[in-house]
Amino acid sequence: MSRESRPIGVFDSGIGGLTVVAEIARQLPKEEIVYFGDTARLPYGPKSTPTVTQFAIQDTEFLLRHDVKVVVVACNTASSVAVDELRSRYDIPIIGVIEPGALAAVSSTLIGKVGVIGTEGTITSHAYRERIRQLDSEIEIVEQSCPLFVPLAEEGWTDREITLVIAHEYLTPLRDAGVDVVVLGCTHYPILKQTIQKVFGPSVTLIDSAEETARDVAQVLAEFGIANDSGEEPAHRFFVSDVPHRFKEQAERFLGAELPNVEVVGIDELMAAGR
Amino acid sequence: MSRESRPIGVFDSGIGGLTVVAEIARQLPKEEIVYFGDTARLPYGPKSTPTVTQFAIQDTEFLLRHDVKVVVVACNTASSVAVDELRSRYDIPIIGVIEPGALAAVSSTLIGKVGVIGTEGTITSHAYRERIRQLDSEIEIVEQSCPLFVPLAEEGWTDREITLVIAHEYLTPLRDAGVDVVVLGCTHYPILKQTIQKVFGPSVTLIDSAEETARDVAQVLAEFGIANDSGEEPAHRFFVSDVPHRFKEQAERFLGAELPNVEVVGIDELMAAGR
Repeated sequence: MSRESRPIGVFDSGIGGLTVVAEIARQLPKEEIVYFGDTARLPYGPKSTPTVTQFAIQDTEFLLRHDVKVVVVACNTASSVAVDELRSRYDIPIIGVIEPGALAAVSSTLIGKVGVIGTEGTITSHAYRERIRQLDSEIEIVEQSCPLFVPLAEEGWTDREITLVIAHEYLTPLRDAGVDVVVLGCTHYPILKQTIQKVFGPSVTLIDSAEETARDVAQVLAEFGIANDSGEEPAHRFFVSDVPHRFKEQAERFLGAELPNVEVVGIDELMAAGR
Repeated sequence: MSRESRPIGVFDSGIGGLTVVAEIARQLPKEEIVYFGDTARLPYGPKSTPTVTQFAIQDTEFLLRHDVKVVVVACNTASSVAVDELRSRYDIPIIGVIEPGALAAVSSTLIGKVGVIGTEGTITSHAYRERIRQLDSEIEIVEQSCPLFVPLAEEGWTDREITLVIAHEYLTPLRDAGVDVVVLGCTHYPILKQTIQKVFGPSVTLIDSAEETARDVAQVLAEFGIANDSGEEPAHRFFVSDVPHRFKEQAERFLGAELPNVEVVGIDELMAAGR
């Protein structure tokens, strides 16, 4: 297989990364995608850095067995804590969701005040804050973890009053701080975009890491000269480590399309890959 | 070590099982407890039966290496789907949380209408319903999964208005059905007991599986003649597969006491135990 025609590997702790897959498929319709969702061990958000790093290595090794040309870490938590370790281990490009999101935030803010929301792991790592400060040390950054947003998105309570009340609870400090840009630092949050926008009002720009990351993937493929320009219809493959209850319903909400056949990878097999 | 002085093994997907530990320690103050919380792979609630069963076997094998005399499956999801498999594999008593909760529900209902609440895994398995029907086939059972209760309990939002609103959302069908007993079929739910009671009013009895299970443990130890009657102060041991963010704060909320030293077991080690 030529270098160009090899697939793009994407992994996430579960199904949230399907928002990134949807964006890559939209922006790069000729590229084949191999997705791995670690649904047996999700979520990564509350878990420690050593544990998330170990899982991220195993997930990457699994994708490498499918001969991927780049690995997209479509999980903010893993991107926050494990991307450096992955880059030091592997020769192919490793694309996290932090850099594209941070870059878009810096480009978008008019007043130099940026909010970042995410899981406990992402916020505690301060990965967005550090990356934004590297790009522009003058920017003021307000961070907030929103642990209930993932379960609310998975429950599908996207337009309920209750979700708006919880969003107010988490986001009021950011609104009061007067940020004009907010990074949605978790692949689940685009599902709640309308509710989040309602709290901030129309003058605040929300940065969706899925969109920015897909743009970054396109750029990396171009720069490395490995974009696929064959005329064949790509056949994506979807792997998960478990098929949880309500999987199909939830996965399709994130993918925004009908989910094709999903293959299950045993945890044993996965761990054997990461040794 | 004599059979009697061996510890009681308790496992859970995470920290919820500490409510069971607290009750065992209260009811059986002479017994030593070895606890394992699978915090690297929590939660078990949404995951499939084969995956939860595989994890439960590995958790049990880990406890057996500590020479436990009984294993308490302090996780409703694992009790619902994996206890039969564990009983067929091991010779020591395996105590789940379903039987004690079902028995208490049948004893407590005056009108023969019982509500059961739990995770997706527990409710989808219908384990409580089946067990209650075996005890009394006349009882009417209304089941409801409440996926947001675990994250709400972990967030510590126990007495917020928002939690009451979500509780109303989930529990109104049970209240309207006129149940007089509700089984709290998840070790996290006792943390939300006051809120849940508020929705149902004082005339509805809530069954706390932690209390019932600790009573069952006492009975099994007596029946098998393996209760510890030495005068020594027991030294409990606590193992987890990860130390997530906010672990100590959350664990102590469930244990209702200060948490002693916690030892971390690698996932590799855990899986090696389950082969």
